[in-house]
Amino acid sequence: MKKISGIFAPLSTPFDSNYDVDWQAFEENVAQYGLTRLAGLVVLGSNGEFALLEEEEKVRLVATARRCLPQDKLIIAGAGRESLRETITLTRRCADAGADAALVLTPCYYKTDMGEMALERFYVETAETSPIPVILYNMPRNTGVNITSSLCCRLSTHPNIVGIKDSSANIVQITEIISGAIEGFSVIAGSGSFLLPTLVLGGDGGTMAVANVVPELCTDLYEAFLAGDLAKARRLQLAIMEINAAVTSRFGIGGMKAAMDMVGYRGGNPRPPILPATEETKEKIRDIYRRLGIEPLRS
Amino acid sequence: MKKISGIFAPLSTPFDSNYDVDWQAFEENVAQYGLTRLAGLVVLGSNGEFALLEEEEKVRLVATARRCLPQDKLIIAGAGRESLRETITLTRRCADAGADAALVLTPCYYKTDMGEMALERFYVETAETSPIPVILYNMPRNTGVNITSSLCCRLSTHPNIVGIKDSSANIVQITEIISGAIEGFSVIAGSGSFLLPTLVLGGDGGTMAVANVVPELCTDLYEAFLAGDLAKARRLQLAIMEINAAVTSRFGIGGMKAAMDMVGYRGGNPRPPILPATEETKEKIRDIYRRLGIEPLRS
Amino acid sequence: MKKISGIFAPLSTPFDSNYDVDWQAFEENVAQYGLTRLAGLVVLGSNGEFALLEEEEKVRLVATARRCLPQDKLIIAGAGRESLRETITLTRRCADAGADAALVLTPCYYKTDMGEMALERFYVETAETSPIPVILYNMPRNTGVNITSSLCCRLSTHPNIVGIKDSSANIVQITEIISGAIEGFSVIAGSGSFLLPTLVLGGDGGTMAVANVVPELCTDLYEAFLAGDLAKARRLQLAIMEINAAVTSRFGIGGMKAAMDMVGYRGGNPRPPILPATEETKEKIRDIYRRLGIEPLRS
Amino acid sequence: MKKISGIFAPLSTPFDSNYDVDWQAFEENVAQYGLTRLAGLVVLGSNGEFALLEEEEKVRLVATARRCLPQDKLIIAGAGRESLRETITLTRRCADAGADAALVLTPCYYKTDMGEMALERFYVETAETSPIPVILYNMPRNTGVNITSSLCCRLSTHPNIVGIKDSSANIVQITEIISGAIEGFSVIAGSGSFLLPTLVLGGDGGTMAVANVVPELCTDLYEAFLAGDLAKARRLQLAIMEINAAVTSRFGIGGMKAAMDMVGYRGGNPRPPILPATEETKEKIRDIYRRLGIEPLRS
Repeated sequence: MKKISGIFAPLSTPFDSNYDVDWQAFEENVAQYGLTRLAGLVVLGSNGEFALLEEEEKVRLVATARRCLPQDKLIIAGAGRESLRETITLTRRCADAGADAALVLTPCYYKTDMGEMALERFYVETAETSPIPVILYNMPRNTGVNITSSLCCRLSTHPNIVGIKDSSANIVQITEIISGAIEGFSVIAGSGSFLLPTLVLGGDGGTMAVANVVPELCTDLYEAFLAGDLAKARRLQLAIMEINAAVTSRFGIGGMKAAMDMVGYRGGNPRPPILPATEETKEKIRDIYRRLGIEPLRS
Repeated sequence: MKKISGIFAPLSTPFDSNYDVDWQAFEENVAQYGLTRLAGLVVLGSNGEFALLEEEEKVRLVATARRCLPQDKLIIAGAGRESLRETITLTRRCADAGADAALVLTPCYYKTDMGEMALERFYVETAETSPIPVILYNMPRNTGVNITSSLCCRLSTHPNIVGIKDSSANIVQITEIISGAIEGFSVIAGSGSFLLPTLVLGGDGGTMAVANVVPELCTDLYEAFLAGDLAKARRLQLAIMEINAAVTSRFGIGGMKAAMDMVGYRGGNPRPPILPATEETKEKIRDIYRRLGIEPLRS
Repeated sequence: MKKISGIFAPLSTPFDSNYDVDWQAFEENVAQYGLTRLAGLVVLGSNGEFALLEEEEKVRLVATARRCLPQDKLIIAGAGRESLRETITLTRRCADAGADAALVLTPCYYKTDMGEMALERFYVETAETSPIPVILYNMPRNTGVNITSSLCCRLSTHPNIVGIKDSSANIVQITEIISGAIEGFSVIAGSGSFLLPTLVLGGDGGTMAVANVVPELCTDLYEAFLAGDLAKARRLQLAIMEINAAVTSRFGIGGMKAAMDMVGYRGGNPRPPILPATEETKEKIRDIYRRLGIEPLRS
Repeated sequence: MKKISGIFAPLSTPFDSNYDVDWQAFEENVAQYGLTRLAGLVVLGSNGEFALLEEEEKVRLVATARRCLPQDKLIIAGAGRESLRETITLTRRCADAGADAALVLTPCYYKTDMGEMALERFYVETAETSPIPVILYNMPRNTGVNITSSLCCRLSTHPNIVGIKDSSANIVQITEIISGAIEGFSVIAGSGSFLLPTLVLGGDGGTMAVANVVPELCTDLYEAFLAGDLAKARRLQLAIMEINAAVTSRFGIGGMKAAMDMVGYRGGNPRPPILPATEETKEKIRDIYRRLGIEPLRS
């Protein structure tokens, strides 16, 4: 497998008014992203509300995404569960459904028990049994568990662990990982808010909520960097800060889905207990779009 | 339903060498606890490794516990899931399996989206549909989400929300809840480390890991308090601090299971990714038991 | 020296419109507290804005308080500084000015350097040179540094370290300290929000902002506990929760000073950068007083 | 005044065996740094143990540094105190002693009272009265207080507030500041661990402990970036990570001083309560130097 690089959108899962998956809306989104310069899609990531999905839904989402996305783009499937045995099972099922790689979140409920040794064994055993390459998923804001740079560097030597999506926003840790991981290990920024610094330090790309709403700005930034146009890359990085915050830390999943609806993607309802964005939140998002020069659709 | 009060053990789930549930060991534990003065058992709590269990296992554990425990003791079933719809389903299935009440953890993965309004709707909708009374479960150390005293007091007015198990160890918050919740609402300490202060302030009991290993010390403490013997209650509270820490914050689930094995309960293996206690940890636990005047079995 | 026990008010320092110490107002407050059943006063505590005072002001405040307070009541002086040498000097000057004991805060700016060994040496060297007994002052909310129960228990064996004021609100830690410190070591609750649980577990009293505004409620609570009237003590504990929060975590120093003004003490201005309470905050404090059955003065 | 930019060393304060300032050692250090390509020195920063110095020492340190450093290099003086009035006084005295700019830390003891409005007034009033330009100093790891990007951007419009030293390592916040502050406002990385990303995003330089020990590596990195040699800048950034961590988060002030001694600067003793580095720490630092290709002196 080629080194994983480029910009990925962490696919949202649209729900209908009964909170069932809206398959048609999902397919439309995948098809639309297929027309962009994104390197691929993450299915069942945090932004896909993976924690609110049942296993059958998960597998079908992977298969559907794979079917609707051009073959030259990758499908990365979120396959982490709290238990090792369920993680192994889900990883296999995602592989069977067509995923190119598995993105495996740290188990996180039993924080006292999730020392470095427990995490290391968890990832090694998952990687040993996975038919597809494994990408570590570090998301301390949601999990309260961190993959340290030293653990990540040790795990990078496993032949079936090919990268990390680090959403910690801890640029010091990301730099240490880039410095210490073995050649060929992918380091992927987990949010658009620190894409450019990650790339500059030697990282390989980004998987970021903001790519669900303005994928072109994200791929423009990435390509400007690759082309050596640092001034343009910086300008784009500064430009996406506000919309990036809106669809992540500021307004959450509800905000991201409303922001998708406003620019022609199918956000749909979040699944309870997540609440949809309020009118006030939507108005703030519209303002941000206008400052970005995007005229939002009525929604 | 009578107000929930007294001491509860949050049942451990023993696993065999293949990490499958060891049903016989589980039944033996339940039967042994049935001989104590515990008010009942919590099945599928944090200490029961609920996050590592599949739904069919969960339902069978509830049914098994109910069958093996004398009818005058309560079964409280951990029924919280990340999604509202799965929480509603699991609550119903636990009720059908014989649970007397449902202990519902805060959804916690989407922290940005779990504001007070989202949590309030989640609990109200769960309570509306639950055939059995609902107990709020606040466990911020594991979840990173807190049920504030003001939210708890509002929820206490719902006729089918009958209490809270608060594991925050935040005695100020617990005092505010006792002060502001409606008459008849149960406040249950979620750890043995703050049982006596909770009782003194007007709380109703405790559900605590330490009751898995030394239930008699816990019920002695509770009964000394009820009998007005504050000096004895205090002595017991001070006595259990060290073993309480060992089976919770210090050595985690692995430590608790080793500590159970040492005193004649069936701890068994934790399910991966949780690791069993190391020999060094076991030696420390043995020392603590000796300081408590308990001669541990070889294990 | 007799074991330190009972209720202490952590004296506020009133400033005039030029932000100089208002000595007359200060003397009036001390005289008024002298008429209550308080065991004594803490001068130069956190509530006394010690961090905003110059050394000459500090020494004069101690001398003034000692002069204006009946001799049977204790003066405890806040004498902690970041550097050991300045702490030693200030402790001596406070002793010369008439302080009965020194309350010594943890140094806190260099958190990485304030491991247990550094803190232990700091306290031992301070105690060795202090002409008056030393009380440890644990205030992690403001300092970000915690005196662990194991460190406290070790320090309790020093003959010139006689107690701890623990403002952590961590009732588990307080219980561990009571359990492990040597006989005769005083454990003093650092806030009114957990006075009763501290007493019940074997603690000796409280030094608390709320005693600046309603000292009688605090001494009533303490005396009810001593007299074995747990029901009354609990009622008073629940009653003071809201006003306690208002003068500490909720509205800060500005709120406490406004609350003092409303009930006949001389709060005066805080010293910048601390801001005085807004009108909105004052209105909320008035409401709390009314719920407590106290008719606030116009202010 | 010209926009502040380039690399600054946050001068250490060497103490002799009585823990008095070792003036000769201090002068030697300043003279040595004067020979490098550093843009200037920060006196009385966190690494200068400002919190452990008396005011007369502080003023003399500024005057001494100014006298011993070539006039084309800047002296920035740490002038923040908890109280506004002492901050104003110290700022003036530092200006009189020859400082070119004042670095003003957030007051931090009264965290509840340090809302955005209090911080804003504190900085505006300091800037209004300061004879020299003011640089904001954000150091949340030590203070527990953060200057948000929105507050910083508002303050950037004041004509006498010319920049921020942000030691938060929060690259998202730094990006927001660069994006939102007015033209001409300097953004200075407060640690060597995120110098390159700060520069790439449009920041102006760094003030960093690691420049106390390997100033040439830091200025090389800066100059490589300015010259457009991103590959070299990245290589240097990765190279300094380990020694940077050693002299900051990992081994604290004691570690930094030992690391200075090893490469020919005069670290000397830290002032108590800070402890000197242990032999074990020193050995680890020597190993890091060797990995960097620097043969440490015996020390």
